Parts: sequence; C-alpha cells; structure tokens
Amino acid sequence: MKKVKHGGNIYEIAEKLGVQKEEIIDFSANINPLGVPNAFKKALIENIDIIENYPDPEYNSLVKAIGKEHQINQNYITVGNGATEVIFSMIASLKPKRSLILAPTFGEYERALMRVGSKVEYFYLKEGNDFCVDDDILKVIDESFDLVILCNPNNPTSQIVEKRRLIKILDHCKKNHVHLMIDEAFIDFVDEPKKETMLSYVEGYNHLYIIKALTKFYALPGLRIGYGITSNRELLEDMNNHKEPWTINSYAAMAGMVLEDESYKKESRQWILAERKAFFDELKKIDQIKVYKPNGNYILFKLLQNKKDMKEALLKKRILIRSCSNYNNLDEVFYRIAIKDQASNTIFIKALKEVLYEG
Amino acid sequence: MKKVKHGGNIYEIAEKLGVQKEEIIDFSANINPLGVPNAFKKALIENIDIIENYPDPEYNSLVKAIGKEHQINQNYITVGNGATEVIFSMIASLKPKRSLILAPTFGEYERALMRVGSKVEYFYLKEGNDFCVDDDILKVIDESFDLVILCNPNNPTSQIVEKRRLIKILDHCKKNHVHLMIDEAFIDFVDEPKKETMLSYVEGYNHLYIIKALTKFYALPGLRIGYGITSNRELLEDMNNHKEPWTINSYAAMAGMVLEDESYKKESRQWILAERKAFFDELKKIDQIKVYKPNGNYILFKLLQNKKDMKEALLKKRILIRSCSNYNNLDEVFYRIAIKDQASNTIFIKALKEVLYEG
Repeated sequence: MKKVKHGGNIYEIAEKLGVQKEEIIDFSANINPLGVPNAFKKALIENIDIIENYPDPEYNSLVKAIGKEHQINQNYITVGNGATEVIFSMIASLKPKRSLILAPTFGEYERALMRVGSKVEYFYLKEGNDFCVDDDILKVIDESFDLVILCNPNNPTSQIVEKRRLIKILDHCKKNHVHLMIDEAFIDFVDEPKKETMLSYVEGYNHLYIIKALTKFYALPGLRIGYGITSNRELLEDMNNHKEPWTINSYAAMAGMVLEDESYKKESRQWILAERKAFFDELKKIDQIKVYKPNGNYILFKLLQNKKDMKEALLKKRILIRSCSNYNNLDEVFYRIAIKDQASNTIFIKALKEVLYEG
Repeated sequence: MKKVKHGGNIYEIAEKLGVQKEEIIDFSANINPLGVPNAFKKALIENIDIIENYPDPEYNSLVKAIGKEHQINQNYITVGNGATEVIFSMIASLKPKRSLILAPTFGEYERALMRVGSKVEYFYLKEGNDFCVDDDILKVIDESFDLVILCNPNNPTSQIVEKRRLIKILDHCKKNHVHLMIDEAFIDFVDEPKKETMLSYVEGYNHLYIIKALTKFYALPGLRIGYGITSNRELLEDMNNHKEPWTINSYAAMAGMVLEDESYKKESRQWILAERKAFFDELKKIDQIKVYKPNGNYILFKLLQNKKDMKEALLKKRILIRSCSNYNNLDEVFYRIAIKDQASNTIFIKALKEVLYEG
C-alpha cells in the first residue's frame, strides 16, 4: 500500500517550479481562506512557552470544549492528531475483516483498512447520478460486512448523503451488525450543518462513529486536531489502551477555544454561502466543463472536450489544483478545486477560461 | 495492555490539589530547564500563521537540518510525532515475533511490541550492579530473538551502556540476525555525547536503528518531534508506506533550526555538567537514600529505611516526582527526579530532607 498523493504538497511544487510557495495560489487544499482565528492566534503567541511541558495526556480542556460545542457526553469523545489519527486508531480497534467504502472517496480510509488487513469493497458512485449515494447502497450492505465508511460531504465529490437516507443506512447497518463510520470533516461548510450531521444519533446507536476535525473550518491544518464521537465506550477504551501517548501537541490542545469564536463562525458562514454560490454560478457558465453542485468548500469538475492536463496548464499560471486521476472511479479528466476568497476565485475562473479557450 | 502512567501529568495533579500547575515544581518530567530556545520562539511567533497550511508531507527542511547536525545521509532519516511515533511505526514495520527489552526501561517499547503481537522477554538489570547493562546480555541474545531494544542512557536509571559493550552487542546481534534498536533520546545530556552515540555505526550496520528526539534537550516536549536513523532503506520505505500522513505539525516542522543554535547548546551543556554533579553530590550526602550516579538529566534514587510514600509527601510541598513503582524490576521505594536549575534543585534537597528526617 503506497502513500496516497493528497492535495496540498505545495512545498514540492514550489521547489520544482523554482518559486516561493507564496507565489502559488493553492486550490488543492480545502482550507477556510479566513485563516487562523485571530483570538486563537493571540492566545498562541501569549502561550508560546507552553511546549516546554508535555501536553495534558487526557486533553481535558480540548475534550470539554468539544463536548460543549456539540452538547455531547465528554466520555463519547476521543481526540487525535488530525482526523487521520482518529480514523486509523478507530479502525485498528474495530478490526474489520470486510469493509465497504465509497468510490471515489478520501484515500486514507483504504490505507487504514489495509493496515489492519481488512478486505475492502467499493460502492461505486454513479457519474450519471452526479456521484450521489443512492438507495442501492442498502442492497449492498449485508451481514458479511463489518464496517461501512461514509464521508459526508464526500471528498472529492462535495456531495452530501441526504439525512433520511443516512438514517436508513444507520438502521440497516444496525440490523446487519455492521459498524458505520461517518466522516464529517467538511460538514461545517454545508448549507445547514445542524440539519445534516448525524451527531444526535450517537447516543442511541453505539455502532455509529462520527469523525470530525478542526482542521478545515478553522483553517488549522498544520496544527493537527481531529476527533471521534461514539457511544461505544468499549471501543473508546480499547483505542485509549492502544494509542501512542501525547500525539496531540500542546498548541493543538489549546484549540478548543476556537469553537467558541462566534464571530469567526459567522464570518466563515457568510463567506462560504456567498462564495460557493458565486463560484459555482461562474463555473457553470463554462461549457467545456461539467461542474458538480458543491456542498462542501470544494468543487469537483470534469473536462468535457478539451482533455489537456489542466493541473500542468494551470501551474504555468501559478495555480495549483488537485488532479483526481488517482481516485478509484475517477480519472484524469476530473479535478477538485477549493472554494477560496472572491479575488482568488475570480483569478481561477479567468485562468481556467484562458487554458480552455486560448491554450 | 493498559496505558502507561508517565511522569509529567501535572495537569491532573494540579486539579486534584486545587492549585495552578505553575505552583508545582515538576521533577517528574526530564526537560531542560533553559526552556524553549529564544531564536526558535521568535521564529514561531513570526510564523504563527504557518498552521494555515498543511505541513510539507516530506518534512524536507527538518530532515535536512537533522542530516546536517549528525553528518548523516538524509535518506537514512525518518521523522515522527515525538520519538514515540518513530518507535511505534518502526516496530510495526519490523514485526518482531520475540523481543528483548531491559527491565526497568521506558514503558512504551513494551506497549509498541504488544501492539504488533511480539513476545516480550526482559533482561533484568541487577540492583547490585547499579542497574548497568553487563556482558550477561550477550549470553541471553540468540537467534530466537528478532529485536533487542536498548535505551542509552536508560530511563529511569540514568545509566549508560559502555561504548565498547554496545559494539559487542551490535556485532553479536548481527551474527544472530537480530535487529538492534538504541533509543538515544537523552544522549545529548551525557558527559560526552559524541563519544557515546552509536550514530557512526549506522552506515555499516543496517540492522541498527537509532531513535532520537528534540524533545528533551531543546525543551520542546509539547511540540512533538522525534526521529529515527538507520541505513535499512527497505524498512524506511515500508514505514513510509504505512504511516499516517502529516503526523508532525507545522510548528514542529520548523524546529530543525534549534539544531544550529550553538549558544543554546553551549549554555545547556554548562548547566547539565554543573548541576548534575552538584545535585548528585548533595543527594549523596543523604544517608537515608541510595542515589545512582546519573548520566542523563535525571536521577534514580532508592529509599533505604524510611519507606513512606515520598511522592505523596513531596506533593504536600508542591513538588512532583516520578514514582518508579510501575516499572518492571523496580518498586515503590524507587523514584526518578529530573535535574533542574540550581534554585529548584536546592528546594528539592531541602524538602526531601524535611520529609525524611522531620516527617
């Protein structure tokens, strides 16, 4: 199992191009362009010496903030070094023998499953259905599976699974004794996060595992903070007994405070709602691409006629996008782009048109 | 396998005592009292926004600095979220079936070994021999082992394995096809680090794995940076293919610069050489304890007659020490204390005497 190439390796790209990474507009990583919340930045600077001590091994203040934010029992929460650590350690404790994941989806589920020797089956999302999860998934899931992993909204398609369908899947999984993991790392960006999240089902369904991250919405990917929520206490204890100590650094352990930054949340909501619509509307006008209506802070599109290497072509204009050629069930005509600030999005539209129509 | 209780959970202790953690002098964690190097602190503040981006997945600047520091091929280096991640992922890739560790030693080796299902055997260090590794270990190591782990200087004993003995062990392991991991996390504190390290053997022996950390010497335990060095390229590739992405945060990825902070190194060397001797000399004068001559920045001692719970007694004086009762081959009369600044060490001596003679 090789390492997955993700978006965001702007370091390597900049070195290859012989430019500073600041000279490249990075549409390959899906990060809130508002940047690190100011109050948190101030707190980091004031507590810059905090790394002289080991972090609290129980991460109490972070766990408390997460519990408060979601109105959830603190004992249901496990924190990790990014959502990735939570996914890997949860899967290591669940020890599934046969698992179902979407195709396409985020590449690390498969790596985590392979690491514990799980057989991996794919639910191939249909292009004709705009890569949405439909009820066919219920026909596929049966007792032979141990684990189903959904990503909502899905990465890289930016499609959500409708809530009523998620509930059906949840019940169907329960009936078939299948664990259900839902990665909600990007859910804070959707139109109505509170309506879409499955958090309220955690209490009643102990085969449900929700993954979240502070990475994307609070623009902290370099700090590494993710968490998992489940009422399966036995599993949480097993994870706790097997995990490496102190995987979350002291600065990240302070980050619970961003969850209380109401003005940052409000400003971010305003940005995403406005820019998602505006960016999508502009992209839709381009007849040489098919754009999938986004629900997250990123957009999947497909080249229709002009099938040149769009990543290479845009790099010449100092714009980095994510090729989707290494996703199962996608190929080199699919690309994912982040939704950024208005100015950057406008530059992107212009550059894309130039490549498509003048190139 | 339960979580190991380490030193340093000053958060829990402070809460239990109902005091601020700053009111407690922490002798339980072995950290350079000079604190975070100033130049690095300044760089952190100047680059506080760096967490808005994912870290470089290859951590090139960190790896380059480590290679330069040790004059070692960069391709031999793997970096991790603290030495612990390197230990866990190296062991996961080595997949030993039968392993030998010292008793007592750092508790995470055993947890990492158990996680991959290795049988764990112990080389019991002899109290009569001040818990030093002797040539008897050569009689124990045979072809039935896959991996031997040494910690040099050993934690919590603060004893070093003599270089000539290490070389014998290295050759003996080679002859018997046994991998040898040496954890040098505390080696920068010994009298002559360059003389004691086994780094120069990496090139010629690809069954040798050296573990290091920036945590202790540069007072960065909360930042989480460790690394491993080996010429076993196949193993490094396997680790790389199995590891979680971005386990090292963006601030930690900047930390290579501390390795070039010559004035910090010099000041730290002056401190440790002076304080180790002074603290040890004072402790030796106390007839109710046996003190083991330290080589690291921490000291193991044993209560002789007065066998009260020294950790509890000192906590009443707002001093936290590490009980060694949960180490294999030690018990509740053994304690480990950090070597701190002169003022703190003096307070400790006074408090210890009060508990022993007045308590």
